[in-house]
Amino acid sequence: MNILFTSVGRRCELLKDFRQALGDDLKIVVTDNSPYAPAPAFADVAYRVPLINDESYIPKILEICKKEKIDAITTLIDPEISILADNRDKFEALGVTVLAPYKETADLCFNKYEMFKYLTEKGIPTVLTFGTFEEFKAGYDKGEISLPVFVKPRTGSGSVGARKVESLELLEELVVRDPSLIIQEFMDGKDMDADIYVDTFTHEPVAIFSKKKISTTIGGANKTISFKDDALFEFVKNAMKVFKFNGPLDMDLFYRDGQYYLSEINPRFGGAYLHAFGAGVNFPALIYKNVVDKKANEEIIGRYEEDVCMLMYDSVVIEKLSNLEGNMQEI
Amino acid sequence: MNILFTSVGRRCELLKDFRQALGDDLKIVVTDNSPYAPAPAFADVAYRVPLINDESYIPKILEICKKEKIDAITTLIDPEISILADNRDKFEALGVTVLAPYKETADLCFNKYEMFKYLTEKGIPTVLTFGTFEEFKAGYDKGEISLPVFVKPRTGSGSVGARKVESLELLEELVVRDPSLIIQEFMDGKDMDADIYVDTFTHEPVAIFSKKKISTTIGGANKTISFKDDALFEFVKNAMKVFKFNGPLDMDLFYRDGQYYLSEINPRFGGAYLHAFGAGVNFPALIYKNVVDKKANEEIIGRYEEDVCMLMYDSVVIEKLSNLEGNMQEI
Repeated sequence: MNILFTSVGRRCELLKDFRQALGDDLKIVVTDNSPYAPAPAFADVAYRVPLINDESYIPKILEICKKEKIDAITTLIDPEISILADNRDKFEALGVTVLAPYKETADLCFNKYEMFKYLTEKGIPTVLTFGTFEEFKAGYDKGEISLPVFVKPRTGSGSVGARKVESLELLEELVVRDPSLIIQEFMDGKDMDADIYVDTFTHEPVAIFSKKKISTTIGGANKTISFKDDALFEFVKNAMKVFKFNGPLDMDLFYRDGQYYLSEINPRFGGAYLHAFGAGVNFPALIYKNVVDKKANEEIIGRYEEDVCMLMYDSVVIEKLSNLEGNMQEI
Repeated sequence: MNILFTSVGRRCELLKDFRQALGDDLKIVVTDNSPYAPAPAFADVAYRVPLINDESYIPKILEICKKEKIDAITTLIDPEISILADNRDKFEALGVTVLAPYKETADLCFNKYEMFKYLTEKGIPTVLTFGTFEEFKAGYDKGEISLPVFVKPRTGSGSVGARKVESLELLEELVVRDPSLIIQEFMDGKDMDADIYVDTFTHEPVAIFSKKKISTTIGGANKTISFKDDALFEFVKNAMKVFKFNGPLDMDLFYRDGQYYLSEINPRFGGAYLHAFGAGVNFPALIYKNVVDKKANEEIIGRYEEDVCMLMYDSVVIEKLSNLEGNMQEI
């Protein structure tokens, strides 16, 4: 299988997992805009490409697909997901499977307020969200929402730019000054996430791996532990019905008073997919089956052990500057 | 050589570097308070120990030294450095070399304001620092310091808790409310750092490796590049004369208008020592010469290549919870 990871950045361990899973039956091709991305050190072929919003970007990526006989493409950054979705036809014309959601789903995942409205319309529990201060104020006066709340950018992933706000005055000031912000209910439940693989033939979720943070005062974040819960698997399967995903995704959830809530979806390999792989949930093999064998996968939901821990640490690539620059091809 | 790394935490790559440098001629023993520390996965022997301020802590560490026939001990966290320095005699009585500074130097490194006063007294350029708002105000009125300034905790390492302050009113409010804060000149020069090894026989710096951040808008921090500058090496050698270090340390510096300024010293293996090792500056070999051969090292200052880059990325340890708990011995 020849796979292309675009905007590969720091995702070295993901490439190592693919290599471990598929061995010599794999060519890893990567792209990045920067010569200082560490992941190209673990690829078979690396290309230095323009920024994703450059007009020559997609033509160059298509050129790489032709030249390297790529079977499947996926991106590792959020802002590129819609771009791949927009150009799905061009990739498919070259026989390249696009491991990214279809257009409407990609756009929903990128906009937290549109996602909230859509999930609410479909009856899927999610985090109460307001698009403007006026909307929030109406809900506040009716007692539907109370302070504190979270304020965060309408687009973008995770908690980047998120801020807890305690007072109505500050909230108004912040949101009126910057209409790109949304207002979300402060969830005091437990947060967790699920790595999900949606089969490219059946469009059903065939693998779900759930993990939560290890609560520890020492050592801080980036320590997770696997768990299984049929209610979570059912929640995920039900939520997947209202979207059109294709390949790997990561779903953030809250759990409160016996109910799961969908917080957000990053429709790409999650940064902590490494945990799922380490626990035996082999997305590279699922991709291979879809892309090379051209067959649907059997469902392996929940086929992993509980209480498998993942502990993150810093690793490094050391390389002469001239080699970093020289090892990436231009196209 | 049998080496003990206390409070080993996430320093997996440092242990791998020691293994690579010394091969089978090395037993790596580590301690941590948490079973969720990833680094024990790369040690030969791991012990779970009390918190460093527990009264049984040092007796237990001494017990481990005896049991494992430890040749050298070093800690990987700042708050423990003074504790090792305080107990130097007890370790030396067991034949254990303490790779930590002597008492007064350890205390100076932990207190930014005392360090400032000491460096100034010794004529070593450093970052202008005030211990109280009154002191700052006097300097401000005389035109010795202007806004903005940095406010940070008196003790602790790096920029943890640091905050840029633009107004006199806010500064007074912050510092009067929390007297543990100090006020530092805002340095707009370039920042860089040096990994230094001070020989345990000659007490002279025998290795210096300097690196600076790679300025790049994409990908952010944790990318550094090596450089050499005789003026920096001379600055470091001169600064080392007024301290009593023993083993590895990391010095943060600023460079402005042709002059280096000492910002702070972390007298332990720096988090980015990996860069120095990858560029061939082999501290494990220097330690081996001191501790096992019981000889002084020859100076290797500046014996490395320029333009060697280090690019950080996330790696992981995956392990069953029961194994994490079972792999650490109690003593």
